[in-house]
Amino acid sequence: MNFLVEQSKRLELIEAILKRYLPKETGEQKTVIEAMNYSVLAGGKRLRPMLMLESFRMFGGTDKVIEPFMAAIEMIHTYSLVHDDLPAMDNDEYRRGKKTTHAAYGEAMGILAGDGLLNYAFETACTAFSSVEEENGQKGLSEINAGYRRIAKALEILGKKAGIYGMIGGQTADIEAADRQIGEDLLDFIFELKTSALIEASMMIGAVLAGAPEKDVEKIEQAASKIGRAFQIQDDILDVTGSVAVLGKPVHSDEKNNKPTYVTMYGLSQAAKDVDTLSRQAMEILQTFEHRNLFLEELVLSLINRKK
Amino acid sequence: MNFLVEQSKRLELIEAILKRYLPKETGEQKTVIEAMNYSVLAGGKRLRPMLMLESFRMFGGTDKVIEPFMAAIEMIHTYSLVHDDLPAMDNDEYRRGKKTTHAAYGEAMGILAGDGLLNYAFETACTAFSSVEEENGQKGLSEINAGYRRIAKALEILGKKAGIYGMIGGQTADIEAADRQIGEDLLDFIFELKTSALIEASMMIGAVLAGAPEKDVEKIEQAASKIGRAFQIQDDILDVTGSVAVLGKPVHSDEKNNKPTYVTMYGLSQAAKDVDTLSRQAMEILQTFEHRNLFLEELVLSLINRKK
Repeated sequence: MNFLVEQSKRLELIEAILKRYLPKETGEQKTVIEAMNYSVLAGGKRLRPMLMLESFRMFGGTDKVIEPFMAAIEMIHTYSLVHDDLPAMDNDEYRRGKKTTHAAYGEAMGILAGDGLLNYAFETACTAFSSVEEENGQKGLSEINAGYRRIAKALEILGKKAGIYGMIGGQTADIEAADRQIGEDLLDFIFELKTSALIEASMMIGAVLAGAPEKDVEKIEQAASKIGRAFQIQDDILDVTGSVAVLGKPVHSDEKNNKPTYVTMYGLSQAAKDVDTLSRQAMEILQTFEHRNLFLEELVLSLINRKK
Repeated sequence: MNFLVEQSKRLELIEAILKRYLPKETGEQKTVIEAMNYSVLAGGKRLRPMLMLESFRMFGGTDKVIEPFMAAIEMIHTYSLVHDDLPAMDNDEYRRGKKTTHAAYGEAMGILAGDGLLNYAFETACTAFSSVEEENGQKGLSEINAGYRRIAKALEILGKKAGIYGMIGGQTADIEAADRQIGEDLLDFIFELKTSALIEASMMIGAVLAGAPEKDVEKIEQAASKIGRAFQIQDDILDVTGSVAVLGKPVHSDEKNNKPTYVTMYGLSQAAKDVDTLSRQAMEILQTFEHRNLFLEELVLSLINRKK
């Protein structure tokens, strides 16, 4: 397997899915739709939909029910960036070398585009229900009910991990941590909710929609939690050691906002060690399932060890 | 029937449901939860959950499946006010005589509380799925299937009417209309999406969850559209003729923001006439259903003819 070739194949698939699910830019509300699409299509690693797809495949999933959820998780990730960049939040004018949404469309449209994306994420995920009864009588009732049950469970996970018991909760704690001395427990809480939660949602939803048993969904949640932490610690490392050219955003941007980071708390060498430990632990969990997904394993390692 | 007595009974029920579904104020994310609950509990007519409940009852609904959706629609209505009040939007410091959320908790928390409410609305609505299979084998498979289908449909309506093809779309057009000359068509579009959409969602979801046939759901959508328009025109009338003491917000607040209103476009007397026509048309539709709901009819009239 050539990892980079395989990765670019998946990236192409994901971009096509995103474009298919994004709303058309028409009507009197066109501006907010343009701002939404601008935000989603501004680029990114598409990490979350890719992890979702690969987790789905690892548990034997093959059908299209996963696609609206792949689009939805990327919309949620994107809206969180759009609102995070607002003047009242991190006040960032550039992201990935492009103007942020509020910088390009004005602050009011930045707020509405974020709201629009969050709402549209749930709308999009709900379209998965239409696939349950699509085959027109070819399925038995208990199979149909199992289909509904899986999508309902996936929606529940999406909502919980994106909301106040997930990402929004982490952002709240993160904002309140600025300009303060915080302890290790609180930094841990912030990493878990702000970064890991959506990665957990991605991988869990993949597993649930493929029909994985509950104990496997729990294990995938644990693996994803570790992947998210390692990813965030690496982010903090890169914030110190990277360069503007490579990262597409100012280095030391967290320091600028007086936010505590893993590196300021533990030092660079301990941070690097912990990334290593967490990624090894995540790998071990992934290798306990009946089927391995070698691409998923390489993907996780590449994310954790990334240089940008 | 004593309308005011009946209304206050329902209000009590709705307040109890809201309190039951609002998140507990604990954890490191406590501040955002406090801000969310502050916003929802700041008062209001609870118009949308009340219309939902009465539409549900009119079509014979009796069980608890409606409750999470009643809470969800009020959370969505509330988040829209929270974001609408932000400095980059309408910049309002007071609403219903109380500090707006961003004025009380700061702008960042105002953004996050709005996001939190929107997300939590979908989380809350999704809990309705748990009621489908609750009776532990007492229901047949096709009954379970019908339960899933109804909730899926209700979620679809909620998403569409709250999002860019509903409320958010209306807000976008509304913001862009400020400081501009706009035509009757665009004002119509704004009223339909910004105000009617959520009222349509309320009444349609009530009907769908009670198992109403599709043609009745379409009729209830038409009635709700007219109710929403009449309600919004009345709002514009009150904005000119009301007083701060009665409204709890500054009079002429729309004029302050240079927003076109129905009154500036058509004049007071035509506006009053149109409220009348629309409410009569809505009543006529409501009276075509098999069962009438006299409380619902009185409620609609009281909203449309309200003095505050």
